[in-house]
Amino acid sequence: MPLARFSQGVVSSGTSEIKRIDINGIAMCLRNGSKENMASVEEKFRTLGIANAPGQEVRQRSADVTHHRQGEMIAGDLVDFSHGDVDAFPPPPGSFERFAEAVEIGGRQAYTEYRGSASIRAEVARDLADFTGAPVQSDLGIIITPGTQGALFLAIAATVGDGDKVAIVQPDYFANRKLVEFFGGEIVPVALDYLGAEKDAGLNLAQLRAAFEAGARTFLFSNPNNPTGAVYSATEITAIAVLAKEFGVTIIADQLYSRLRYGNKDYTHIRAAGLPEEQVVTIMGPSKTESLSGYRLGIAFGSPAIIERMEKLQAIVSLRAAGYNQAVLQTWFREPDGWMNERSIQHQAIRDDLVAIFRAAGLPTRLPQAGSYLFPTLPALAVTLEEFVKLLRLQANVIVTAGTEFGPHPNSIRLNFSQDRKAAVSAAHRIVQMVQIYKA
Amino acid sequence: MPLARFSQGVVSSGTSEIKRIDINGIAMCLRNGSKENMASVEEKFRTLGIANAPGQEVRQRSADVTHHRQGEMIAGDLVDFSHGDVDAFPPPPGSFERFAEAVEIGGRQAYTEYRGSASIRAEVARDLADFTGAPVQSDLGIIITPGTQGALFLAIAATVGDGDKVAIVQPDYFANRKLVEFFGGEIVPVALDYLGAEKDAGLNLAQLRAAFEAGARTFLFSNPNNPTGAVYSATEITAIAVLAKEFGVTIIADQLYSRLRYGNKDYTHIRAAGLPEEQVVTIMGPSKTESLSGYRLGIAFGSPAIIERMEKLQAIVSLRAAGYNQAVLQTWFREPDGWMNERSIQHQAIRDDLVAIFRAAGLPTRLPQAGSYLFPTLPALAVTLEEFVKLLRLQANVIVTAGTEFGPHPNSIRLNFSQDRKAAVSAAHRIVQMVQIYKA
Repeated sequence: MPLARFSQGVVSSGTSEIKRIDINGIAMCLRNGSKENMASVEEKFRTLGIANAPGQEVRQRSADVTHHRQGEMIAGDLVDFSHGDVDAFPPPPGSFERFAEAVEIGGRQAYTEYRGSASIRAEVARDLADFTGAPVQSDLGIIITPGTQGALFLAIAATVGDGDKVAIVQPDYFANRKLVEFFGGEIVPVALDYLGAEKDAGLNLAQLRAAFEAGARTFLFSNPNNPTGAVYSATEITAIAVLAKEFGVTIIADQLYSRLRYGNKDYTHIRAAGLPEEQVVTIMGPSKTESLSGYRLGIAFGSPAIIERMEKLQAIVSLRAAGYNQAVLQTWFREPDGWMNERSIQHQAIRDDLVAIFRAAGLPTRLPQAGSYLFPTLPALAVTLEEFVKLLRLQANVIVTAGTEFGPHPNSIRLNFSQDRKAAVSAAHRIVQMVQIYKA
Repeated sequence: MPLARFSQGVVSSGTSEIKRIDINGIAMCLRNGSKENMASVEEKFRTLGIANAPGQEVRQRSADVTHHRQGEMIAGDLVDFSHGDVDAFPPPPGSFERFAEAVEIGGRQAYTEYRGSASIRAEVARDLADFTGAPVQSDLGIIITPGTQGALFLAIAATVGDGDKVAIVQPDYFANRKLVEFFGGEIVPVALDYLGAEKDAGLNLAQLRAAFEAGARTFLFSNPNNPTGAVYSATEITAIAVLAKEFGVTIIADQLYSRLRYGNKDYTHIRAAGLPEEQVVTIMGPSKTESLSGYRLGIAFGSPAIIERMEKLQAIVSLRAAGYNQAVLQTWFREPDGWMNERSIQHQAIRDDLVAIFRAAGLPTRLPQAGSYLFPTLPALAVTLEEFVKLLRLQANVIVTAGTEFGPHPNSIRLNFSQDRKAAVSAAHRIVQMVQIYKA
């Protein structure tokens, strides 16, 4: 038996007691019977909050904030900036018809492989290879998932285990952080100076290198960035790829909004930036720009080894994306001529209206280069951000998402401006009025 | 610093090295930097096999078994017993129409709460309360998921953590075991003497008590049992409930097939067996009996605390069951008069044909009291079960699922007999011929 340098400690946290033990400097976790384990499951879910997540406002109790209310009700139709309005921007023609055909086909379309229908994967793989500028293996390198959220979940589960360090941008999509924490990973934050940079997204590359030096072996980021709409420049993508190669880091790139770009903004796909195929998984889907969210369809493509693990897990998470729904992907990248350009022009007009309103009111706001999110900065307020967001809903009929969902951003709110233009402009004015009322 | 009785060992397993350390008899897992952690993620997925899972046959390489082939090809149309044939048994009228209406409704139906549309939950909760004989809280006690697989995944994730013991029936649905293992749980097997019992399902209640005494605090089981079609008697359900109450065990009851019963077979819902509401989650869905699998819809109902955790997790796993698809639940439990009875009579006829064929050939087979699965026992074979299943597909055009997917059952195969009757009978004869060829 070896001699051991041995120390231990006990940390109380709610109902659970987590014992940490160090032997020769190596930290160990302690398994100590099922009662403490059940407490740790409860603990895990306690940190997995969704009360302030977009779309869940209906479950909030309004009594919480009414005693903070100042000023009058501000009239106006409800605008829900927590997600896009698929009634204002309908899906491309033919999507419902593809679904109806799939129902007619019946069993063969209902029971696809877990990774999705082979013929649909083949079509989509061709289009994604064209779009991203790098080959996609239709048999081994692509999986159809229930929405891009499903793809993100599977990709993180397939790469991140207990104690693994993961580099995460701040701000970035709120579920990224929650997913890493759910699988026991540790977040190493990397700042995005989205207000300071214009030609770049503003990624702090020194911090990214430091994260990799500290042991992070996965880098998960959205491009265009959610919530700011910043697009990473070719220089930034190249720098990320060089660092990932040096440290053997797996890249998970969430490119959900990469088709909706403004003014022919350049876009560099990291999967085409010279990294080995095994090191990159890209995630896209037709839920947002194409307004097909009600069908829940996502795609992950790239590394065959990671896609294989994702399929294994999908087999016990949800079996497959709904079989009939998969057929709707046959309309993706096959919209009528000019359809995407028209959608971009319409969104750009709303973007410009809203950014002008917020900037005129002194709220610093990055001009998004792609996607349909805005992330204005508010002044210091007399109420907490969570209270302000609730008051905005109850007093001004406007729903936004708190910046704190995206990282340590207690002075920001996120808006999805894929809305009816007139309604969005009216609601933006109401936000400004509310800021005037509640500023500290 | 306390004195410690201390021992350790190193186990090599593929590329990963797992260190086990015992201090004062308590086993601990070792965290030792990100490289070993990455290996442990790979390890976790290595055990999560799907190569022999139903529906994945298309990904198998046929070269593996052809050198074992004996005898001639046995002609006949392909019958895929790995799942039901939704073309032979179409869904109830109105399902597609409800979907089409939801697409027309648009945004409100696309973006529901994560737990599903409130109005649809309210309707389904009423029907499930009537069906199961115990109240369902429509706001707090029900969640709509992507298929019953989605519900099982969320329910296990919400109750089982690292090192937790879970009582699992042998045989039972293959994903149960995989789910528990994925979340680091430990399976405590409980035998089902499905061939010995007729009035009971055959659960070994002494083993169930022993499992609870050994620390299992979750009991997951399917009723009717998948793969045998055995229905638990009122006596058995009552005994399970008494034990669960005594030990504070959470019950997860997969009742996917509980509507399709033969000869008015009695059925006891464990959620109505006197346990506190918090201790039971029941899972159902319209994928099987109602042939709506292509829509991927499942329901979990019961314990509000567990449902709340399931919703938190669904928010990062897949957001929600596809919004438009949820509307199809409006046809569930509202089929035309006599529809379910007719479906039961048709399935009973196929069941009786197939059981007669297998029993006449000397293959012991339980007569299923509900559902559409058969689990005949084969004699000792000259090839492995995995090889036999592949040969059956390549030589006789019949797809079945190996018994080893359901626990330690190397002499059994599972058939979903929800098929065209004539095709199913022909395929059953081919199975018998193949058994004659390959028996040891």
